[in-house]
Amino acid sequence: MDTFTPTPASIPPPGVRYNLREVTTSPNHHALNPLAFILRAAQIYPDKVALIHADVEFPVRYTFAVWAQRIQNLAYALIKAGIKPGDRVGVISPNAWARHYHTRYISLPPLVFLYSQDAHHAVIAARGVITPINTRLKPSEVAYIIEHSQAKLLLVDHECKHLVAGHNVPVIISNDTGRVGDPYEQFLTEGRQFSKEKGWPGLMPELDENAAAVLCYTSGTTGRPKGVVTTLRGSYLAAIANAAEGQMNANSTYLWILPMFHAAGWTFPWSCSFSFATQITLRTVNFTHIWKHFLHSGVTHYCAAPTVQIGIVNDPHAKKPPQVVTAIIAGAAPTAHLIGELERTGINPVHVYGLTETYGPFTRNYPQPSWATISLDERARLMARQGQAFATAEDVRVVFPYPEGVEDGPLVDVPRDGKTVGEIVTRGNIVMKEYFRDSAATKKAFAGGSFHTGDLAVMHPNGTVAILDRSKDIIISGGEASQNASSLAIEQELSSHPHVLEVSVVARPHVKWGERPMAFVVLHPQHEGRWKGRHADFEADLKNHAKSKLPGFACPEWVEIVPELPKTSTGKILKLELRKIVAKL
Amino acid sequence: MDTFTPTPASIPPPGVRYNLREVTTSPNHHALNPLAFILRAAQIYPDKVALIHADVEFPVRYTFAVWAQRIQNLAYALIKAGIKPGDRVGVISPNAWARHYHTRYISLPPLVFLYSQDAHHAVIAARGVITPINTRLKPSEVAYIIEHSQAKLLLVDHECKHLVAGHNVPVIISNDTGRVGDPYEQFLTEGRQFSKEKGWPGLMPELDENAAAVLCYTSGTTGRPKGVVTTLRGSYLAAIANAAEGQMNANSTYLWILPMFHAAGWTFPWSCSFSFATQITLRTVNFTHIWKHFLHSGVTHYCAAPTVQIGIVNDPHAKKPPQVVTAIIAGAAPTAHLIGELERTGINPVHVYGLTETYGPFTRNYPQPSWATISLDERARLMARQGQAFATAEDVRVVFPYPEGVEDGPLVDVPRDGKTVGEIVTRGNIVMKEYFRDSAATKKAFAGGSFHTGDLAVMHPNGTVAILDRSKDIIISGGEASQNASSLAIEQELSSHPHVLEVSVVARPHVKWGERPMAFVVLHPQHEGRWKGRHADFEADLKNHAKSKLPGFACPEWVEIVPELPKTSTGKILKLELRKIVAKL
Repeated sequence: MDTFTPTPASIPPPGVRYNLREVTTSPNHHALNPLAFILRAAQIYPDKVALIHADVEFPVRYTFAVWAQRIQNLAYALIKAGIKPGDRVGVISPNAWARHYHTRYISLPPLVFLYSQDAHHAVIAARGVITPINTRLKPSEVAYIIEHSQAKLLLVDHECKHLVAGHNVPVIISNDTGRVGDPYEQFLTEGRQFSKEKGWPGLMPELDENAAAVLCYTSGTTGRPKGVVTTLRGSYLAAIANAAEGQMNANSTYLWILPMFHAAGWTFPWSCSFSFATQITLRTVNFTHIWKHFLHSGVTHYCAAPTVQIGIVNDPHAKKPPQVVTAIIAGAAPTAHLIGELERTGINPVHVYGLTETYGPFTRNYPQPSWATISLDERARLMARQGQAFATAEDVRVVFPYPEGVEDGPLVDVPRDGKTVGEIVTRGNIVMKEYFRDSAATKKAFAGGSFHTGDLAVMHPNGTVAILDRSKDIIISGGEASQNASSLAIEQELSSHPHVLEVSVVARPHVKWGERPMAFVVLHPQHEGRWKGRHADFEADLKNHAKSKLPGFACPEWVEIVPELPKTSTGKILKLELRKIVAKL
Repeated sequence: MDTFTPTPASIPPPGVRYNLREVTTSPNHHALNPLAFILRAAQIYPDKVALIHADVEFPVRYTFAVWAQRIQNLAYALIKAGIKPGDRVGVISPNAWARHYHTRYISLPPLVFLYSQDAHHAVIAARGVITPINTRLKPSEVAYIIEHSQAKLLLVDHECKHLVAGHNVPVIISNDTGRVGDPYEQFLTEGRQFSKEKGWPGLMPELDENAAAVLCYTSGTTGRPKGVVTTLRGSYLAAIANAAEGQMNANSTYLWILPMFHAAGWTFPWSCSFSFATQITLRTVNFTHIWKHFLHSGVTHYCAAPTVQIGIVNDPHAKKPPQVVTAIIAGAAPTAHLIGELERTGINPVHVYGLTETYGPFTRNYPQPSWATISLDERARLMARQGQAFATAEDVRVVFPYPEGVEDGPLVDVPRDGKTVGEIVTRGNIVMKEYFRDSAATKKAFAGGSFHTGDLAVMHPNGTVAILDRSKDIIISGGEASQNASSLAIEQELSSHPHVLEVSVVARPHVKWGERPMAFVVLHPQHEGRWKGRHADFEADLKNHAKSKLPGFACPEWVEIVPELPKTSTGKILKLELRKIVAKL
């Protein structure tokens, strides 16, 4: 087997220093900037493995010292290419869905690309704004983002070339090999030459911690995506909070399952550098790969939505890894069944909640000592709540919506009764700076001085936030508010049926009641044989199960078995698609 | 035994909220303030034990909810007493040295007082500036601090009354009981009444994160103490860094051995709230108490100087605790002997370095993977270095001193050769705001745009800082720079003699060489019998030991066995006192 050696330009010079240019600023104040973490990691642990790019033809390993040199090379290359402070640099990762393994359960998005890791640090070092682009978008959607972001340069994987055809923005192609001859490596080598060995001290630090760090487009299921601008200060504080919540340290190994283009990977590129953790990136992700790394690469942490977690625990390779693995779960609430399965597999679930606009997670479901003595079902019900604010968030509230026609003004908290539905709002350092070039949307999102998440929730007496549903996910049954059913609550209960792998519930028009719940179910592969050709029997069985758990108005009126659920590239279930199916019934 | 119940005023009202008054600020920016951590801890873990005040007649336990209420009461009481934003509030803890147990090894300072814990949060909540006062000072020194700080109010333990006699600053006395009838409890009760149950939302948050948080007077061994002003932003960031370096979490229990009046307890009052850790405070500290808590109270973390650590490992109660205990060591470098003893006792040493002006620790000696295969002596030699910058420090450098007559200007790094001696300087968010009412000293300390520590060090090729000595601790032997001996290096080698408990080396005039090292040695109690009446034999034995480890000019010319070494209240050896002894020889 060919062994890997970094390109000559990736080797740091002897006596390298990890300080940016010294500028006369205050002796007792410096701008918060997550770039500091990789510089410090390279300074303290130069020879520790920082990055493993696995499951490619020739696996790539970079130490912190080599990786930092590559980041520096990219920063210089960007400056040479004309990137000025504040300019956007687009990054498009490989689009390799054809290679997926377990399409049966879930189609994992392609993620992983050495240069996206580089870019999350180097674009900031060049004082540009990294603009990660979702690889599952259509060329027309990519075109919109390129134009809206006014990107000055695109870093594009060789498999994504077709997505950027026809633009006149300069493109650097990466073959993702890390080898001499790769156009991206050539770009880095030119950066190194351009640096004239001025090194880190040749780069100017950003002096404004409120400068933009990332421009991330939301994967809105309807309408144009919005460009979320985050800052250096927010990224620094969110990254530290994520490292603290995950209890990451120099012995941690983080496996990339979450796409880095999703809310800058929830700031984990920087959380890992802060913690001196090793990161494993993959070119294509499937559950065989995941289990290989859980069992043999010492993985201690990963992030993923519940749908992905379901795929993980149901993979035939699943068995207890030799080390504790912490699963950071967001995107939807984990069900009791999933929590039980994860724990049985030796995986420690941490449930967090957030949006692109909040740098990824900004609340966590904090485990309570009292949970030691309650049943798994009861615990799972409590763990499904979105929880309470991260240390670096200012506050998290649930407030009444403005009355019809009112668009701004003071926000009024709903009572802490676990019943009154309002909208989750939050404020502080880990809220985005703005929607890019969209002051109207920014103004609306910041009405009343807080960021409006659009998520409907209740506030429990102990201050815990629990999402019910996006407003359209409330099933209005009978017109009485007390009989409004949360599709999320119904899903939680249906998923406790042992033969259900995944379930999604939407409203379906009903002659008598106005609306009634309809459930779309993916059967567990171990049990699907039993119901083959007997869908009506399964329907009856599931309805019976529901009746023992839910009030009548919340029991599904219809149950449909489907081979898989439609999902976004980040694993969120596309209820819009299910509603389209319902509309045609 | 009488059981403890909190005073009625300490019980939070039902439905308490942990947000300060809502003010119209930015939705995406809030002032960093370590007060946020206790509010969040009380919100998320209201019923978890936050504070245990042990080893008093009736031990006191407060949950986070109760403790937060007491902090709130104190904040209101301070406001009622006329404290305005920016006003200084002095705190003087019990002065109980008469009670010390092991005066034979070291006289631990008195520390610990419930209300100092309260004050570290409540004074900030009232937007005042906490001014902890060292209890070992003479009344005239306390008078200087009261006058210089212009304190508006003093919180004084009943045993310290004599220290504040004759001042006309209002004084609140605490009997440190937590019980009705204690004047401090009465003060809190009045605060609660004054609040009219407006709770946390009745308190205005500080909107300027660069506002002063603490005014701490340095325990300078010569001259007037200087008032070090730190900020809310710096305290927030330093506290998070300390929690991260110690890997603290909700399962941690922190034992107060370090006095809280020393650099605000290195920000650990806030690190503990950030981590949801339980804190154990003591009224008097001795090694029997410490071991009781190591063995039976689940202690996982403590901070102390090496001299205190020596007392800990040599206590007859020492045995491996059931949990891992992390010892955060600063004030001087731990010797190989001490590191070995700590590890054998199941204590994990973390060596950090800092000053009051840097919020306590700002560098850490980061353990390296390569240390797994080297000898303890070799590892201890590497671990004795002060290390590299914390995540929240901007940079740490070793620079040439300014030439004679020059007082400001660019700083030039010494070569990274592990040999060239310069001064440690640092910059960034965890450097103090200023010396209070002393712009000349501030200007001098910030010359060239960095804070000057006054500590002389070398920079090793890997970027690790290693202190040699304060300039006066260099022994100038023969007048040639290459023969200047570091007393610290000599102490490191002498302490590896198995019969040495503690050793301190100072320069003593020498007819031929100008200066030569003189060693003051405390014998280990297990071995002192052997050398009884044979001091000259021990001297020969130690000199022999030195010869095998040190160049001739660094070997002690004189060895004096002493029963104990003179120390400051924070456990630093007072070399000044040893030099006075030498001057009389």
